[in-house]
Amino acid sequence: MPYPETFEGFAIPSAADLLTPSQFKPKPFGDHDIDIKIVACGVCGSDVHNATGGWGNEHWPLVPGHEIIGHVVRVGDKVTNAKVGQRVGVGAQIFACLDKEKCNACATDNETYCPHLLDTYGSVYPDSGTLAHGGYSSHIRAHEHWVFPIPESLQTELAAPMLCAGLTAYSPLVRNGAGPGKKIGIVGLGGIGHFGVLFGKALGAETWAISRSDKKKEDALVLGADGYLATQTPGWNDEHKMTFDMILSTASSNDGFDIAPYLSLLKVHGRYIAVGLPEGEGWKISPFSLISNGCLIGSSHLGSRNETLEMLQLAADKEIKSWVETIPVSEEGVGKALTRVHNNDVRYRFTLVDYDKQFE
Amino acid sequence: MPYPETFEGFAIPSAADLLTPSQFKPKPFGDHDIDIKIVACGVCGSDVHNATGGWGNEHWPLVPGHEIIGHVVRVGDKVTNAKVGQRVGVGAQIFACLDKEKCNACATDNETYCPHLLDTYGSVYPDSGTLAHGGYSSHIRAHEHWVFPIPESLQTELAAPMLCAGLTAYSPLVRNGAGPGKKIGIVGLGGIGHFGVLFGKALGAETWAISRSDKKKEDALVLGADGYLATQTPGWNDEHKMTFDMILSTASSNDGFDIAPYLSLLKVHGRYIAVGLPEGEGWKISPFSLISNGCLIGSSHLGSRNETLEMLQLAADKEIKSWVETIPVSEEGVGKALTRVHNNDVRYRFTLVDYDKQFE
Repeated sequence: MPYPETFEGFAIPSAADLLTPSQFKPKPFGDHDIDIKIVACGVCGSDVHNATGGWGNEHWPLVPGHEIIGHVVRVGDKVTNAKVGQRVGVGAQIFACLDKEKCNACATDNETYCPHLLDTYGSVYPDSGTLAHGGYSSHIRAHEHWVFPIPESLQTELAAPMLCAGLTAYSPLVRNGAGPGKKIGIVGLGGIGHFGVLFGKALGAETWAISRSDKKKEDALVLGADGYLATQTPGWNDEHKMTFDMILSTASSNDGFDIAPYLSLLKVHGRYIAVGLPEGEGWKISPFSLISNGCLIGSSHLGSRNETLEMLQLAADKEIKSWVETIPVSEEGVGKALTRVHNNDVRYRFTLVDYDKQFE
Repeated sequence: MPYPETFEGFAIPSAADLLTPSQFKPKPFGDHDIDIKIVACGVCGSDVHNATGGWGNEHWPLVPGHEIIGHVVRVGDKVTNAKVGQRVGVGAQIFACLDKEKCNACATDNETYCPHLLDTYGSVYPDSGTLAHGGYSSHIRAHEHWVFPIPESLQTELAAPMLCAGLTAYSPLVRNGAGPGKKIGIVGLGGIGHFGVLFGKALGAETWAISRSDKKKEDALVLGADGYLATQTPGWNDEHKMTFDMILSTASSNDGFDIAPYLSLLKVHGRYIAVGLPEGEGWKISPFSLISNGCLIGSSHLGSRNETLEMLQLAADKEIKSWVETIPVSEEGVGKALTRVHNNDVRYRFTLVDYDKQFE
């Protein structure tokens, strides 16, 4: 049975298993739901963490993908955010309670921190018990709150990775004051980090890229970075101590990672926001490394609907170009993309394309 | 040679050594300096950490004590903040560059985060090379910026511990928005923690004490706490998840300390500020424990001159009574106080008194 009864996609049957073409049933169609015929989907580092089981995913089979762009093919009776035929996107969150009376998070434009949030794939809808599936597939069904119109001037394959990687950089930058007169650092130049540089600059902040070696210096400067620090250089942080307003860390590896010299870069009460989520036990932090400048360490989860819409508009207004390599959404293509993301062999994001060829 | 050439005090000759009566030379008297004849000094947990060498103190002998109250006996030509005969206090910081042109910290009322700050004792003045000595002694010489007039209505022995423990609680409470309409938690009911409850209430916040067992519940409620959570109770945090605006942690032990359930108490972007400084390696923190509410973790160092003056005035206005046990400043008394602080056997602070008997 084809759409609308069944969606087609690529599933991982169990942790670290091989990708398999498969069919699955979406959740029951609700009044606020939108069905989207997918045309592109970004490949996120979290797809790899989830596919391998490294993040402890509990529900299988897993159809990854949460940087989805497609066209609306059906809207529920109460939908006001989108129309059939419209080009829209879906990111990494698919549900929150949105109960502004009872949920402080949802009442304050923080639905991304709602205790009832559901990830776009690998989570179970509590009402129907349906397993949510992602964008390595023909269609997705989503509540309209998590369906975002894509501004006309944005190219589909460049806009897709903004829906998770882009937003993951954008929201903490905005919430922590990145803008004119501020000096910010972006640690790690990968998928999220390259958006950190692009959006940091677009927001008007003096934006420095911070990486281990000089290998990515040229890329960083082409992306627009105002400066570059290579942490392998002895004394790399000396001249910059207490000069940064905030640091967005996208580093996803803990190996040999000593956070203290990064913290030394921050002004009084400056903030180190880590959005890279390494597998394993995390950081060791001595309060002594926080006390000399009273800095704060935090993390950040995606962003709100409003921030998503603002980010896409900013990208359109400033003509921001994600660095994207496209790859066909086939068994071979998806496997190759996941392997290369796992090996950090991408500059700086894959977008799966050619959905018509695979799923028609 | 007595004062003014030499000051008398109790010194610790080297790490974990025994307290010894001794004499020492103060730094050369400068235009902005004030000499104070000491009448009382609080005993701080940091005195123990420093006396044992646990915090890595490098300069010996060590005359501890940085919650000092006394009377001005001499002022430099340029002093404007105090007069001879006035009752004043000195806290845990004794120097910063105060260069508002070159130092971002000093320019922004953050002299407590100045890279050139000196602790009141155990640090070396870079110009004269003199070792700074604390308040277990007859006199102290201090730059006027770190000399604070004590409001008349405050009792000496109750005001002394405010100068470090009190300020260590007060500054982060104020800087992180403790006030009417906010719900705050104070972790650990010791010297600093009891000030956290007193000042949290005085600032108008709904103030909860958080401790391991119910042992200190009665004290917390008498101090004014609106509620009490004992973390040994299974499910202690369940009802309070995402309801606290900030948590001030004064816990100074890492043993078996799992920070995650405390973080779960915080609202979106709530803050966990740790001012207890355990010896040893610090916390292990997984970014995953920060992401569900986007909370921030930080530390805090003392407070500014302005905050010190505000705190003392608030304590006078609200008639705040520190819980203090007095003990004579003798070899026996100081030794006993340090031992009992080391064993957490004090409710909640010692003030050394009877300076006239020891040093006249």
